[in-house]
Amino acid sequence: MPHADSSLVPTEIKTKAEFWAHVHSQLALLLEGQKNWVTNLANASSLVYNALSAFPSHFGSDDKAVNWCGFYLDSRLFPRSSDHNTEANRLLLGPFCGKPACQFINVTPGKSRGVVADGFLQAKTLLVPDVDSYPGHIACDGETKSEIVCPLFLGSKPIGILDLDCLALGGFDQEDKEGLEKIAALVVSSCEWE
Amino acid sequence: MPHADSSLVPTEIKTKAEFWAHVHSQLALLLEGQKNWVTNLANASSLVYNALSAFPSHFGSDDKAVNWCGFYLDSRLFPRSSDHNTEANRLLLGPFCGKPACQFINVTPGKSRGVVADGFLQAKTLLVPDVDSYPGHIACDGETKSEIVCPLFLGSKPIGILDLDCLALGGFDQEDKEGLEKIAALVVSSCEWE
Repeated sequence: MPHADSSLVPTEIKTKAEFWAHVHSQLALLLEGQKNWVTNLANASSLVYNALSAFPSHFGSDDKAVNWCGFYLDSRLFPRSSDHNTEANRLLLGPFCGKPACQFINVTPGKSRGVVADGFLQAKTLLVPDVDSYPGHIACDGETKSEIVCPLFLGSKPIGILDLDCLALGGFDQEDKEGLEKIAALVVSSCEWE
Repeated sequence: MPHADSSLVPTEIKTKAEFWAHVHSQLALLLEGQKNWVTNLANASSLVYNALSAFPSHFGSDDKAVNWCGFYLDSRLFPRSSDHNTEANRLLLGPFCGKPACQFINVTPGKSRGVVADGFLQAKTLLVPDVDSYPGHIACDGETKSEIVCPLFLGSKPIGILDLDCLALGGFDQEDKEGLEKIAALVVSSCEWE
């Protein structure tokens, strides 16, 4: 099967629970045999993003579209991590699908702001039904209406964030949270981190 | 300006030469202040991909769509490059926009195949108007009809490939080649590689 076809969603999949289970199984196949996080996060963001746009009963490519899906990661994980561009307390933009995005997120306790930083520092998934009413929201894309951020945990330690934006208010719910937390766990376990 | 807006294409832009000059100037702004290649290649692939889909006189999101835009890079550039998953003579999938793709490309001379490997080993841009008639083509996506691969040069040495696929036959021409070669040079110069 061409790799692109892993993001197809069979018509018999009707519920969000079925959808996330399907994406999880496709992702496990897609990442098989590869341990590099850049490569795996690139394919993971693509699979989730394109599968969501192929699931019109809940998302799709129109007014309910997920318009961004990707990763921010602890800057110390990045190549050339010893140089002056990399700082502690900073998440750098990793692989994603969607329009161009903020290069980094400050996660210094007491100085950070925004949904991604809050999810990372609180070490928990945050569902934001209306980003414009979220204190300190950083608008990388003015079209985004709602957001979900899901930490990547290496053991109990957050090492990054899986971030999804939606064009609709209230675009994500508890079922998406549960599905994405399993996706995030699979992504982390597929890669070598240290 | 929100970062996402860097991929907008003003209506006064009519020709491909104007388009590529615009994308080049937007990319220079988008990458400013950041040297990490993962972050910069993620934003670069997004900007080019989304700008092309916003340029319907030549590309757009329908039957002339560019359906994949991203990078393959020398595996030795990737984080955890000392481990057993990284081999010489292999390009690994880097940041991209589009559907899921092949994890790696073998670039061992005499054992490689496909457009990406040929562009890398020949160290030159290759325009492929019909991928199905290209000897040894690797079909990551059966919908792709044409392709352009443009090496990233660090000095005179290729370190990776900027790869674009199109749903239309003959999707790319000499003007795209010239535009993309300048984009590739800007991307390389924006990052620290060693």
